[in-house]
Amino acid sequence: MAATDINTMKDMARWDPDSRDRLRQAAIDLYGERGFENTTVAEIAKRAGLTERTFFRHFADKREVLFSGSETLQERLVRTVVEAPASLAPLDAVALGLEAIGEVLPERAETSRRRQTIITANAELRERELIKLASLSEALAGALRGRGVEAAAAGLLAEVGIAVFKTAFGRWIAEGEERDFAQVARESIGELKMLTGRVP
Amino acid sequence: MAATDINTMKDMARWDPDSRDRLRQAAIDLYGERGFENTTVAEIAKRAGLTERTFFRHFADKREVLFSGSETLQERLVRTVVEAPASLAPLDAVALGLEAIGEVLPERAETSRRRQTIITANAELRERELIKLASLSEALAGALRGRGVEAAAAGLLAEVGIAVFKTAFGRWIAEGEERDFAQVARESIGELKMLTGRVP
Repeated sequence: MAATDINTMKDMARWDPDSRDRLRQAAIDLYGERGFENTTVAEIAKRAGLTERTFFRHFADKREVLFSGSETLQERLVRTVVEAPASLAPLDAVALGLEAIGEVLPERAETSRRRQTIITANAELRERELIKLASLSEALAGALRGRGVEAAAAGLLAEVGIAVFKTAFGRWIAEGEERDFAQVARESIGELKMLTGRVP
Repeated sequence: MAATDINTMKDMARWDPDSRDRLRQAAIDLYGERGFENTTVAEIAKRAGLTERTFFRHFADKREVLFSGSETLQERLVRTVVEAPASLAPLDAVALGLEAIGEVLPERAETSRRRQTIITANAELRERELIKLASLSEALAGALRGRGVEAAAAGLLAEVGIAVFKTAFGRWIAEGEERDFAQVARESIGELKMLTGRVP
């Protein structure tokens, strides 16, 4: 390939609207290969064929690359719960919200699995993830209160909803699991009903 | 009070089997008054009428004073779930375990409330607490597997159990709550059954 072609490609890459995704992918690749601690922003940018400046337009630091999707996820969960038909029981509104999360997760569970392996290997990242989940729980409780669920029950159901999310997520990224996230979430909600349901 | 009386009291204090509790109480008092960051081990020991050396016989550092009860709590939860009658449904074994936690919590919810205020004000402590809760969930899942609950369901129910624990704990330490922890935990389990129960 001629040098001019490569330069043209680099220029395209620089303005590529997908640069965010490519930086994320490059970061996950490098963290997996070398470890999170041993990877620099310069290396991530280079692997993605972009500049450090572009990296910092998208992410505050190399940790945030791994958590940049969590706001979108929270918005989708909250909006789905708020907009669920008023006739739905609170748990069923939560179930819809959890299924909707599947729409904002990476299409391939493998990407999420690799991301999770990186997080699990690093205490700082594990702690960061737990903080994000606590924030997700608070947002979900707010959405439930918005549906008229009493505050105490909303807090309890939100915590339970996040517990189901964590479980479903773990199953979805497990080796050999072929179903999409929404199906796995539905199964987990079904199990919750079985495990906690009053005997008819 | 004569100086010799004070010295006698100090000597008693030094060999007091309750020194662990007194260090804990002094730490919570000082963290509340000055903030966690601004309190030293020397100050905690002094307030408790003990030496720094005694402090370090009981706790690894000033952070661990706040989390020293979590192993006892975990042991009590796990043991109660393991020893619950085999005829009990898994959720009801978890419910017994959560109620039993009340036996190892400080008698007065106010102590726990003050401790929680300190933790909430400090990111490092909040993260530490979340890690402890994750460990509690893993231990509970293990106890449920020991009862023959299938691994996936055990993981889900453990996460849900911890969600209920967090909620019940928050209610128990709320201003104006007069019931003991076991009662509050029972109420939360009842609510969970209502919120998730299949309509008969």
